[in-house]
Amino acid sequence: MRTAVYPGSFDPPTNGHVDIMRRAAGIFDHLIVGVGVNSSKATLFNPEERVEMLKMAAKDLNNIDVATFGGLLVEFARARGATAIVRGLRAVSDFENEFQMALANRELAPEVETVFLTTSPEHMFVSSSIVREIAALGGPVGGFVSEEVAKRLLAKQSR
Amino acid sequence: MRTAVYPGSFDPPTNGHVDIMRRAAGIFDHLIVGVGVNSSKATLFNPEERVEMLKMAAKDLNNIDVATFGGLLVEFARARGATAIVRGLRAVSDFENEFQMALANRELAPEVETVFLTTSPEHMFVSSSIVREIAALGGPVGGFVSEEVAKRLLAKQSR
Amino acid sequence: MRTAVYPGSFDPPTNGHVDIMRRAAGIFDHLIVGVGVNSSKATLFNPEERVEMLKMAAKDLNNIDVATFGGLLVEFARARGATAIVRGLRAVSDFENEFQMALANRELAPEVETVFLTTSPEHMFVSSSIVREIAALGGPVGGFVSEEVAKRLLAKQSR
Amino acid sequence: MRTAVYPGSFDPPTNGHVDIMRRAAGIFDHLIVGVGVNSSKATLFNPEERVEMLKMAAKDLNNIDVATFGGLLVEFARARGATAIVRGLRAVSDFENEFQMALANRELAPEVETVFLTTSPEHMFVSSSIVREIAALGGPVGGFVSEEVAKRLLAKQSR
Amino acid sequence: MRTAVYPGSFDPPTNGHVDIMRRAAGIFDHLIVGVGVNSSKATLFNPEERVEMLKMAAKDLNNIDVATFGGLLVEFARARGATAIVRGLRAVSDFENEFQMALANRELAPEVETVFLTTSPEHMFVSSSIVREIAALGGPVGGFVSEEVAKRLLAKQSR
Amino acid sequence: MRTAVYPGSFDPPTNGHVDIMRRAAGIFDHLIVGVGVNSSKATLFNPEERVEMLKMAAKDLNNIDVATFGGLLVEFARARGATAIVRGLRAVSDFENEFQMALANRELAPEVETVFLTTSPEHMFVSSSIVREIAALGGPVGGFVSEEVAKRLLAKQSR
Repeated sequence: MRTAVYPGSFDPPTNGHVDIMRRAAGIFDHLIVGVGVNSSKATLFNPEERVEMLKMAAKDLNNIDVATFGGLLVEFARARGATAIVRGLRAVSDFENEFQMALANRELAPEVETVFLTTSPEHMFVSSSIVREIAALGGPVGGFVSEEVAKRLLAKQSR
Repeated sequence: MRTAVYPGSFDPPTNGHVDIMRRAAGIFDHLIVGVGVNSSKATLFNPEERVEMLKMAAKDLNNIDVATFGGLLVEFARARGATAIVRGLRAVSDFENEFQMALANRELAPEVETVFLTTSPEHMFVSSSIVREIAALGGPVGGFVSEEVAKRLLAKQSR
Repeated sequence: MRTAVYPGSFDPPTNGHVDIMRRAAGIFDHLIVGVGVNSSKATLFNPEERVEMLKMAAKDLNNIDVATFGGLLVEFARARGATAIVRGLRAVSDFENEFQMALANRELAPEVETVFLTTSPEHMFVSSSIVREIAALGGPVGGFVSEEVAKRLLAKQSR
Repeated sequence: MRTAVYPGSFDPPTNGHVDIMRRAAGIFDHLIVGVGVNSSKATLFNPEERVEMLKMAAKDLNNIDVATFGGLLVEFARARGATAIVRGLRAVSDFENEFQMALANRELAPEVETVFLTTSPEHMFVSSSIVREIAALGGPVGGFVSEEVAKRLLAKQSR
Repeated sequence: MRTAVYPGSFDPPTNGHVDIMRRAAGIFDHLIVGVGVNSSKATLFNPEERVEMLKMAAKDLNNIDVATFGGLLVEFARARGATAIVRGLRAVSDFENEFQMALANRELAPEVETVFLTTSPEHMFVSSSIVREIAALGGPVGGFVSEEVAKRLLAKQSR
Repeated sequence: MRTAVYPGSFDPPTNGHVDIMRRAAGIFDHLIVGVGVNSSKATLFNPEERVEMLKMAAKDLNNIDVATFGGLLVEFARARGATAIVRGLRAVSDFENEFQMALANRELAPEVETVFLTTSPEHMFVSSSIVREIAALGGPVGGFVSEEVAKRLLAKQSR
């Protein structure tokens, strides 16, 4: 059985993340979505909320699991028996950072391959940070995230 | 009458900003320079100072107004009756961020078009942040900003 | 009245070209689509065919004219009284070439400004050359060009 | 069984191609290396030679097949029952072209996913064309291709 | 005698930094490695530690000096009689920032030329920040920095 | 004595080439401008003409020689005792190709270092091919090349 990890912050998950997640689940037998937990980085949603939103987006697919991870990504991948790390590529600046991480991860764990999927054009310029920014300014985020995530973003703002 | 908005932080306005502003004023009937005010982001100059410096740079052109705005850029554009957002493009990394914002703004307000002008080569590598950095280290900024802005930067440093 | 030129080879016009053309027609009072005629470059469609296809795509908009031009683009713009050249930006490699041309054109005609519009995400990776290539291999091009253009591409192949 | 296609011109196969091929064979159950045959494009090696060189590079791996293909890549993938197309990414300009092809292919065959692997750093700047160019000038190509390919390149030059 | 400055934060020096330093020392008669000291930026290693690690990496080369500097880089270069600033280029995003700095520095000191060397492929995706991040997560950094630097990184973490 | 080679096609030399040549001559004791002669590539100016134009542009500097070369660049550099290859960087697409060549050349001749200088902003978007294109269409090229080169371009066109 071929297992892959799809890691990210998912703060919150966007339509682009969900698109990559679902397509990756079609390529591998088992996909583990790994929600990175980094104590030094402030997030809008806590890890449990991010896991919940991802689980809702994957609920009709039975080969996806969602979990948090803390230390090195490659250790998480190894511990879960994954042979691939999945990443979505959006744009050129992404590409540079992604290459750097992929090559550093190869140095750390040569047996885990990083594979990139192309984000669908309509999601290519969506990011969690732009979604958070629009929501913070009271703008509509319905074109960028699911209804459920939009509702939760609204709830955050109204506090 | 065709109105456009030229938004930015302008902290401070550089020769590159002034170049784009003046050229945009030649393409549209009315140009509103929008100084973004974002309470969560520390700036060197306060909004009033930035408006003042821009007004001085535009004083010989009678179709330019300068104003601050707080929320979503597209809401500001709509409120002012603008049908275009003007942005200057400098380099590749700019291009990526600018595209992301332009496409997010199109999602939010399809009736407002983002148009890009090319920064003049001599201003292509000037940015407000590099100007602030040089000034903070006591370096001369006369090649990057107007005399008025240079004087104000010097005043900031000497405090 | 503000007139702009939207130049290109349009061999053939793609959905991306049509998108830029129609949006540019919303920003300027008068838009002239300029079909570049370059005797040293072999094209699939002759200039008349390209003008025809563009005219069909613009037939419901009364502020668009389509014409061929031979020499320097800036001479064409000047002769037509245009103060702006419109170009669509798709991707990073585009950006580089476009900048080079925009700056060369500014050197040649400082009074004509080049303005860039962002191609819609769904058209961002469509180009005339990829369309010609797919058609040459017998593939369907319906997702990339209009029905009319697709029909003409098919006719070219069956010869 | 998960089958993938790794397409290319392979004129000739470089160490970078072989690296991607072997790593892709570790991710998928079955890998078909597809040698593109395009009658309008002159190549240094004929299709049979390119297939032979690839077969030699894959001879110790029993889940790799090498074949030529003529028309659309997605038709080849479909005919072979592949659900993925594998491509190696080297650099930014690659990235742009690859994205364009991946998105065009998705339009043509949504059920076939394109996945990208990162070329190893030491192969990142090797291409078939630079290898052909060095060989044509009588330079040593041992650092870029296998011994077998180097021998064949030398033989081509001495004719 | 031709003197060059190789400036950086070196927090900590990576194998890529050492590679550039040593190759630059082969091009110029005298190389001064300048450790930037910027009171407003938190670093993992203090300036003395960074100087020490660089000196150890250069100890077999007698034309390299290591020193700290505080203000403008071009002032440091001038004070040391350097006619060139050396920088290593890794990737596209580097390139943009580096160009901006090089052109700003030329404006400030036209007599000091910035020259770029290409980072070796195997170091192309290594950066001080990724090294600090891996070390912070308890990962092995032996592939990215010298044994001495790895030891010091480990000591920092265990505190 | 430190000798460097500045190679190129120089068909024709632009103001950008001359800028790089003169600045490189300030960094190295001896600069050899190498005019690449490639029998398979059609050029507008023959090698002698290109050497002549470069010599005129360098006539006031006594540490510059101009010569043609045919085979591998690194062989030319070695034969002339050069320890460095100088290249001007203009833009991102340049950067990619230049890196590929620099790393291939390092593989072929590790003792010859490639160093890059930044093209001055005003020359950043000038290339020999755009100059040839403008000249072929009868446009003025005075902003891109020297008076002498402009005169020769004009002479070529009038034939």
